[in-house]
Amino acid sequence: MNKEERLVKQITPKSEDFSRWYIELIRRAELADYAPLKGMMVIRPYGYAIWENIQRLLDRRIKATGHQNAYFPLFIPESFLQKETEHLKGFSPEVAWVTQGGQEELEERLAVRPTSEAIIGYMYAKWIKSWRDLPVLINQWANIVRWEKVTRPFLRTTEFLWQEGHTAHETREEAEEETRMILEMYREFVETELAVPVIAGRKTEREKFAGALETYSIEGLMADGRALQMGTSHHLGQHFSRVFNIRFEDRQQQLQYVWQTSWGVSTRLIGAVVMCHGDDSGLKFPPQIAPLQVIIVPISLGNWQETVLPLAKELRMKLQEQGFRVHLDAREEYTPGWKFSEWEMRGVPLRLEIGPRDVKQRQIVLVRRDTREKITVSLEESRARVSEILDDIQKNLFHLALRFQQENTYETNDYREFQEIIEQKRGFIKSYWCGRTSCEEKIKEETQATIRVIPLEQPEDIKNHRCLHCGQPAKWLVYFAKAY
Amino acid sequence: MNKEERLVKQITPKSEDFSRWYIELIRRAELADYAPLKGMMVIRPYGYAIWENIQRLLDRRIKATGHQNAYFPLFIPESFLQKETEHLKGFSPEVAWVTQGGQEELEERLAVRPTSEAIIGYMYAKWIKSWRDLPVLINQWANIVRWEKVTRPFLRTTEFLWQEGHTAHETREEAEEETRMILEMYREFVETELAVPVIAGRKTEREKFAGALETYSIEGLMADGRALQMGTSHHLGQHFSRVFNIRFEDRQQQLQYVWQTSWGVSTRLIGAVVMCHGDDSGLKFPPQIAPLQVIIVPISLGNWQETVLPLAKELRMKLQEQGFRVHLDAREEYTPGWKFSEWEMRGVPLRLEIGPRDVKQRQIVLVRRDTREKITVSLEESRARVSEILDDIQKNLFHLALRFQQENTYETNDYREFQEIIEQKRGFIKSYWCGRTSCEEKIKEETQATIRVIPLEQPEDIKNHRCLHCGQPAKWLVYFAKAY
Repeated sequence: MNKEERLVKQITPKSEDFSRWYIELIRRAELADYAPLKGMMVIRPYGYAIWENIQRLLDRRIKATGHQNAYFPLFIPESFLQKETEHLKGFSPEVAWVTQGGQEELEERLAVRPTSEAIIGYMYAKWIKSWRDLPVLINQWANIVRWEKVTRPFLRTTEFLWQEGHTAHETREEAEEETRMILEMYREFVETELAVPVIAGRKTEREKFAGALETYSIEGLMADGRALQMGTSHHLGQHFSRVFNIRFEDRQQQLQYVWQTSWGVSTRLIGAVVMCHGDDSGLKFPPQIAPLQVIIVPISLGNWQETVLPLAKELRMKLQEQGFRVHLDAREEYTPGWKFSEWEMRGVPLRLEIGPRDVKQRQIVLVRRDTREKITVSLEESRARVSEILDDIQKNLFHLALRFQQENTYETNDYREFQEIIEQKRGFIKSYWCGRTSCEEKIKEETQATIRVIPLEQPEDIKNHRCLHCGQPAKWLVYFAKAY
Repeated sequence: MNKEERLVKQITPKSEDFSRWYIELIRRAELADYAPLKGMMVIRPYGYAIWENIQRLLDRRIKATGHQNAYFPLFIPESFLQKETEHLKGFSPEVAWVTQGGQEELEERLAVRPTSEAIIGYMYAKWIKSWRDLPVLINQWANIVRWEKVTRPFLRTTEFLWQEGHTAHETREEAEEETRMILEMYREFVETELAVPVIAGRKTEREKFAGALETYSIEGLMADGRALQMGTSHHLGQHFSRVFNIRFEDRQQQLQYVWQTSWGVSTRLIGAVVMCHGDDSGLKFPPQIAPLQVIIVPISLGNWQETVLPLAKELRMKLQEQGFRVHLDAREEYTPGWKFSEWEMRGVPLRLEIGPRDVKQRQIVLVRRDTREKITVSLEESRARVSEILDDIQKNLFHLALRFQQENTYETNDYREFQEIIEQKRGFIKSYWCGRTSCEEKIKEETQATIRVIPLEQPEDIKNHRCLHCGQPAKWLVYFAKAY
């Protein structure tokens, strides 16, 4: 048994046990580790670099659409959460409470923010006076705490990192437009940068955010056929503005309540990237968000330290100057073969090999993580080729994932077939639904499948269809799936 | 009374009441606002943009010196804080405690992190096995909670944002080198980017971090003559590695405890910028960290919307393309004069005025916030001049602050004179000290002055001097000041 095999054997194959594969891979690749607290994790540098790339690429989009960043307090007085009844009901089972400050018992419990609508609503009431103050377009990058019973690294943890946008508008239409614009921004961001294809749409009453008028969501399909909610955009209506009294004088000098939205994506996106692209050899990162885009492995033969290493260092410097994220693994205690599988496991999109013979022939070997293709290129063309190949890997990962999504999206209105698909293949199922929560809940009880979204574009002939479950006239075409 | 006067009159003059000036200015300029919780604040977009600039400029330096970012949990079990006795004593009066999670009472209280040495120490013990794993060079950008009794926006708040570096090394010498390298990085960063001159040095036993072997600090002098600690770098020795059992096999296969450092700067730096550069007309931002570098004010005369506005928009676009942070204030409800004092108050380094006559003459007027100098330049040369002038403002603000610091640094070894200076002028006082905590404490009791730092370079003739307070042989030349 050689070292390469041994390395991969440390990780349960994906096909054997997806859940174990996921958890073992995350720890072995040093993306995250368990913290000594229930349901909490440490995001290690290799994992945090992905979050930094996500922040950089998404923050740019958030600002380009006119939003500004700010920072609101971590603690929210209990009485604030109580103001919006649905909101409180939705979040109170998950709140961590601060009850002591220094030596003193607090008179009122403070929630460690499970989301910031309440505290931001209070501040907006102070800041917004006139239609001239609107829209308010603010985003916050912050940590969030939800006391979850069942946790899984990145997907559901007691603490996680996210961005939360909170906007206030003059009219319902403007708030609706913002909500949908953000939904589209998320879709484009996730598909372009994370190479994860998603379906977008509206949530049902049952699945929407506690306190929202409407919730929109993007949903990805993971390699085990389960759906993952990857971002949400809520039209809050006037629910929070009424309880926090956020009023403005409109253009006709009338006092009106503002219309609000909120929206967010979190470190859960890192879990999505792992589950969407990874394989039995390990992680597979889209170059745009990869912690490292190129790993240089010198072939340690003969007097490689005098011949190969200087050239490897020069290549590293040149690629770094071009803006690529590059690492040169010049460790002496590991063989090149060991390094190949180590960095494959850690998902680096492109490996650059260089040995004594390559130095003589003024060439290098590039190996793609996605296709494993080996490409020999001259030193002169190496930089241009690295750039081209990384672009191509980004596109290829998206197309592979899209093909998987398409091959695992079924259409049926036969409930028995529906049950079989959910049980045997999972994936998305497009079916018709009467719009009643009772049917939705029965289907969930019987199959564990939930309505992921109601697509914004609906068939014109909807009236000719019937509900998958009850056979009554259909109201919506929806996507079902088992979800994380 | 015209509108310009009225605007400035909303803020107490700096010379009249520095403390009120500071607080009123921060709120009026929309840097921050009070949150509905004791000692907490909201950092508004205009203030948060400064923090984003600080993050960008400092993060670059942190990474260039080989550190990587990561994220550790917000909560720390009480038993972890108890492991290092001095550390616990130092922090326990300031800890906010989580005692309930969801519906359950927790068995062990969780501290909302007042600093992360304890939780990071625990993780390092898991990760570090061999000298090959060292050094570990990790930084974290995070929020911190300390239950402070007396608070002031940015300077001391119950919650604040910071970066905290945590490193582990093979030898004491390496850890000491890291500690001092970071001190120098902070000095260079603060002087270059914030234009705040500082003195750097070592803290006394009494003033050092709870659990450290040595603490180093940079100290700025604010416009009211009080010192502000702006960044600290701690050599932790083996205190934490012994209690968390962070051991590695050294190059001779012997088990050794690692040597550690930790270091941080916080949103307090924003307060330093306000207090160091501001004047009676308001804020004065160094261009490098200013939320806006250029404010364009169109002179609204005649048909300005057809003539002036298109050119103003074009200028904005061109300056933005060059990478400047620019805003065009085209609001119709305010006069140009009102806008001039508004943006002066909000500290924008450079104002760009353009009126109908300027359009005809293809010129613009630039007005510096620091010197109030008006400079008429042709449209052609405008972009180059904006760049030059911003550079010059950055340098000028540093030189003004440096001159202030020098003019307010006194040397005396006469205790009566020392008392007079502290009472009447404040500023830094260089004096000799015997090295005993008893003298240091007496001086603090009698004058409120504390030893800010012991400079790293000490006079050769130290033995010829005597302690300011007790007259015993001097051990150190030190800087005293009243501090925030």
